[in-house]
Amino acid sequence: VLIVKVGGGAGINIEGVVNDLATLEPKEPFLVVHGANALRDDVAEKLGTPKEVVTSVSGYDSVLSDENAIDAILMSYSGLRNKRLVELFQRAGVNAVGLTGLDGRIIQGRRNKGIRVKEGSKTLIKRDFSGKPVSANVDLLTLLIDNGYTPVLAIPIVDENGFAINSENDDIINVIQAGLKADRIIQLIEAPGFLDDASDESSVIARLSRAELVSREEASSGRIKRKLLALNKLFQEGAANVIIADGRVEHPVRDALDGHGTIVG
Amino acid sequence: VLIVKVGGGAGINIEGVVNDLATLEPKEPFLVVHGANALRDDVAEKLGTPKEVVTSVSGYDSVLSDENAIDAILMSYSGLRNKRLVELFQRAGVNAVGLTGLDGRIIQGRRNKGIRVKEGSKTLIKRDFSGKPVSANVDLLTLLIDNGYTPVLAIPIVDENGFAINSENDDIINVIQAGLKADRIIQLIEAPGFLDDASDESSVIARLSRAELVSREEASSGRIKRKLLALNKLFQEGAANVIIADGRVEHPVRDALDGHGTIVG
Repeated sequence: VLIVKVGGGAGINIEGVVNDLATLEPKEPFLVVHGANALRDDVAEKLGTPKEVVTSVSGYDSVLSDENAIDAILMSYSGLRNKRLVELFQRAGVNAVGLTGLDGRIIQGRRNKGIRVKEGSKTLIKRDFSGKPVSANVDLLTLLIDNGYTPVLAIPIVDENGFAINSENDDIINVIQAGLKADRIIQLIEAPGFLDDASDESSVIARLSRAELVSREEASSGRIKRKLLALNKLFQEGAANVIIADGRVEHPVRDALDGHGTIVG
Repeated sequence: VLIVKVGGGAGINIEGVVNDLATLEPKEPFLVVHGANALRDDVAEKLGTPKEVVTSVSGYDSVLSDENAIDAILMSYSGLRNKRLVELFQRAGVNAVGLTGLDGRIIQGRRNKGIRVKEGSKTLIKRDFSGKPVSANVDLLTLLIDNGYTPVLAIPIVDENGFAINSENDDIINVIQAGLKADRIIQLIEAPGFLDDASDESSVIARLSRAELVSREEASSGRIKRKLLALNKLFQEGAANVIIADGRVEHPVRDALDGHGTIVG
């Protein structure tokens, strides 16, 4: 099985991703986990409920996933992007099944306890609908794959009480990998690979060893640190081969498999 | 298997439907086909793409399902309503899987050839993304049900070329019934049952025979005629027992099974 993570930026060439996967040689079962953050921001804005960012006492910025934010996720990730992606696969002859983590409890998580925020002189706990994935329903994923269906997954995931919660796709990939033990994982982003200098697209690192992953994680902060932590965890879950590659090119998957981008491991 | 069709009006008591189905006695596998038209109109309005109604040369009014309209369907039916419904089921302990007709080609249809409309003195063919269901992927429905999952279905369906198309839930129920041969079908609407006089809620017909179904269909027009045609077809597909009941009450499913509403057949 090949796991393909497709970023949610506006620049990702979705049609290219679908066409590459529909014509994989040799044929191989795959599953897709996709984002839709650009679309979500757009939909939330139009609906008059733009995303709310809160800063925790410890200085982290987080998007607050209140009920409106989950509605926007359901419309943009689970609805529009997921089903248009399934449609593209169906047009290309791939029998895709679009699912959120709620469906069949395919991605089960634990809801966050809340974010500690300062409001004036007080410290408050703001609780929202977000959390961390804990496990994947590998039985259902396998049932679908073994019967010829291609799972196409998006947030939200389901919490311990059955509620829809927001979560990070990097963490979702980790719990899927823990169960599926895929040979290869491709992550398609809006950059030509993992950049040594985030502001310089020519600084792609062709090969990132596991030792380097650890040292870079220790030296980084913010979103990059979270990304590197998730990658580290992916190898602990048994990943053999992770490719971070450009999702904006004509053949995102083909190029990634041909050695473009960053090979991690 | 019990098939439950849940109307898409704003007055339907979704929580009541879910709680009744989660506590069915005796337990019985079921599947849900739901609408979301009130939500769709609301979302389309907010997104600045309100629904467009065209009148055919022969005098029928139809909503034009252009690309924007399908986007609105994907957001409201496939996204927001479908996944909030799945969430309610998960919270109630039912392992629901929300799907559109695109997913696994579960509802396959044929795209309409177009609507003949007058524009000034000319007659034009307006082609949109709408069509009629032809068959259901009973293998996938059965695979899910046999493995303990509850399918929760919504539009769009998939056309012969893999495109997402709009369709009528009454017709979708018919192709599902043709494959599943359910014992009972419950249709929950925003009325206490099938009304003799559409403007008078006290005119519920307690029992509608198949002969009467035919004679009423011949005497009716518009939306009611389409509804009656679909009901007639449902019996041709082997339905044994159809109950049309009030979706607005505290216990929509329990009341329907207790004999409230209209028993057709």
